Amino acid sequence: MESLMNSAEEQQPSSPLANSWSKIQESSKNQKPKCVGGFVLVHAGAGYHSESKAKEYKHVCKRACQRAVDRLKAGALAVEAVAAALVELEDSPFTNAGMGSNLNLSGEIECDASIMDGKSLHYGAVGAISGIKNPVLVANRLLSEAQKGKLSAGRIPPCFLVGRGAHDWAVSHGIPPCPSEKMASKFSLSAYKRNKRKMELAEKIDTGHNHTKKRRQSSENENGSGCLDTVGAVVIDLEGNVAAAVSSGGLAMKHPGRVGQAAHYGCGCWAENACSMNSHSTAVSTSGCGEHLIRTMLARECSAAMQSEDAHQALLEAMQNKFISESPTCSLTPTTFHTHRFVLEFLWSHTTESMCVGYMSAQDSKAKTHISRLPPGTVPGQCLAIEGGVCRLMSVVE
Amino acid sequence: MESLMNSAEEQQPSSPLANSWSKIQESSKNQKPKCVGGFVLVHAGAGYHSESKAKEYKHVCKRACQRAVDRLKAGALAVEAVAAALVELEDSPFTNAGMGSNLNLSGEIECDASIMDGKSLHYGAVGAISGIKNPVLVANRLLSEAQKGKLSAGRIPPCFLVGRGAHDWAVSHGIPPCPSEKMASKFSLSAYKRNKRKMELAEKIDTGHNHTKKRRQSSENENGSGCLDTVGAVVIDLEGNVAAAVSSGGLAMKHPGRVGQAAHYGCGCWAENACSMNSHSTAVSTSGCGEHLIRTMLARECSAAMQSEDAHQALLEAMQNKFISESPTCSLTPTTFHTHRFVLEFLWSHTTESMCVGYMSAQDSKAKTHISRLPPGTVPGQCLAIEGGVCRLMSVVE
Repeated sequence: MESLMNSAEEQQPSSPLANSWSKIQESSKNQKPKCVGGFVLVHAGAGYHSESKAKEYKHVCKRACQRAVDRLKAGALAVEAVAAALVELEDSPFTNAGMGSNLNLSGEIECDASIMDGKSLHYGAVGAISGIKNPVLVANRLLSEAQKGKLSAGRIPPCFLVGRGAHDWAVSHGIPPCPSEKMASKFSLSAYKRNKRKMELAEKIDTGHNHTKKRRQSSENENGSGCLDTVGAVVIDLEGNVAAAVSSGGLAMKHPGRVGQAAHYGCGCWAENACSMNSHSTAVSTSGCGEHLIRTMLARECSAAMQSEDAHQALLEAMQNKFISESPTCSLTPTTFHTHRFVLEFLWSHTTESMCVGYMSAQDSKAKTHISRLPPGTVPGQCLAIEGGVCRLMSVVE
Repeated sequence: MESLMNSAEEQQPSSPLANSWSKIQESSKNQKPKCVGGFVLVHAGAGYHSESKAKEYKHVCKRACQRAVDRLKAGALAVEAVAAALVELEDSPFTNAGMGSNLNLSGEIECDASIMDGKSLHYGAVGAISGIKNPVLVANRLLSEAQKGKLSAGRIPPCFLVGRGAHDWAVSHGIPPCPSEKMASKFSLSAYKRNKRKMELAEKIDTGHNHTKKRRQSSENENGSGCLDTVGAVVIDLEGNVAAAVSSGGLAMKHPGRVGQAAHYGCGCWAENACSMNSHSTAVSTSGCGEHLIRTMLARECSAAMQSEDAHQALLEAMQNKFISESPTCSLTPTTFHTHRFVLEFLWSHTTESMCVGYMSAQDSKAKTHISRLPPGTVPGQCLAIEGGVCRLMSVVE
């Protein structure tokens, strides 16, 4: 599989958006897609990936890709493989999902996750769930339980559970609980202490000012750089089905009970097999500030835009016209599969300082990873980067 | 204000969908819209409204309309008026929202609610919240707090809170707690006992059969008829702003922590003032099985369809082509305001056995109410009814 990755690594984008994208489009035209089987693309969350931790982020993306490809080769469907990739991302103490998630205002970890199956269009989600190591497995189990049909006495199975109820449902379905204190990492605990001091300081400085003034002043300080958001993955299996999933510890110092886009239908992830209405299969996984991403329904809107024949251009336009004003900090990994040509186009785009991605086809011996960064001197939230690649799938109906 | 209400009451629809709708369309053409000020349309939830309780449902709809119009006349914006209407609907022990909500599997009441302001496009929502008499007031407070800007240290205010965290946030913002046992009504408690016996019986009958068979058999039994879902309202204020809100106790015997469409962005309600992208202001409030309504994003999709010049036809097509297969039991109240002509078109549509609505303009002395029923002999979920009316607003920019 050839891709734009190498050119992007050799040649750091040095100009804003439009130029950066043109270069990628040109090199895309020179590429000759190779035949491959299933495919996975993962990301480690919107935000800023420091040079010192770059190796860790790349490693976890690599492992996540390998996990998904192993499952695909064993005959798993896309939805199962994407859950496997997410488990690896959640288990890393460096990502803001599962283990090592951001702590909330009360010093507790509450996670959101969702998964969507492009074949059935079913989805499962959990919000503000505590004491479960892998929230994505609960979302996945909700999805698979719902596919079995109604419960006793005609009750409709839930697709979205939150809080204590979600935790209890998970445990009653054989998913082991995990003591909350084991889920915090050194990194998330020290970030919590730092954020708490920052909050206390901000509130102390504001003492004596009126409420409105306090709000305005404090809005100048963004959440500490270095924090990351929702991790995610998109997968296409050997039968050509797509699936997408996301998982998140949410915003640092969020209010207990806050649920972000990672648990919201159409906002965190989207997957849709080709059908009479859509000529291409699409899968999208998003990351960024949940409150903004909910309002833009980023995943679903982006998936609709990707039905265009020129996915690069469609994504660029959607990001510029629809999202950059509403969702100033976001990242996403849209993937389009052109069923009739067996061509897979995968992209990643971000308005945040950086985005770490990994991708791998079922025929690759190992995953490729990359940290995409905005050109030096550009302002996060005001410009964006789009990169990606193309490959041809071997066959979807053998 | 003239409307289709009288003709619908005099002449019960006796034929399925297409004919029923044609009659309404014809009478719509003969109507001469009158000038009015603000406007409210409420509904008491999808489901079956027994003849014996018809009076109660009409009464609560009437009171809800009056509350909203009182607020409008006092100069309130649409979002405040729609919240006032919802409080009245929640306070009735006959509706499945707030007081008298359905009990969940553990015999507890957990409510969902959301509200959307068509002017700012902000929304606020709560999911699986217990011990709060009026969940819509928490959703509304989340919306208004978010409009004030960021919190200390640059934190983004939440738009969606669930469970215990939502309850605590509400209390800390001055919304009084209400003991859970006070929220159950005689009606909801007896329905819980009846449903519990039904479940136990269904599970006893299934003993000895395998799991798949159990699921299939039980799926034949629908949730007990007589149960209702999400209540809601749409409002247009004297300035021409629209707002929508919904509130729900959720499905009877749901799993604790289950969140339905009433708390989901784009699914429970939608409100959008006219802008450069949309020539009409639209507001929609939905009701029905949450799991289905989430998948169809009923409120938002319906709002988009209503941008058509022929709102009746657009709604009919959307209900037939998009929703009836995916959301077999639903009700909704879409309202379109044609800013350039000051014409307000209000509709209600349902695939459930019946739907109770009330509506009132700021110039009316009292609200009109109506229970719309599917034609006799038709099968709920397989055919639908659409009714509504038209009125002209006095002025939106005086």
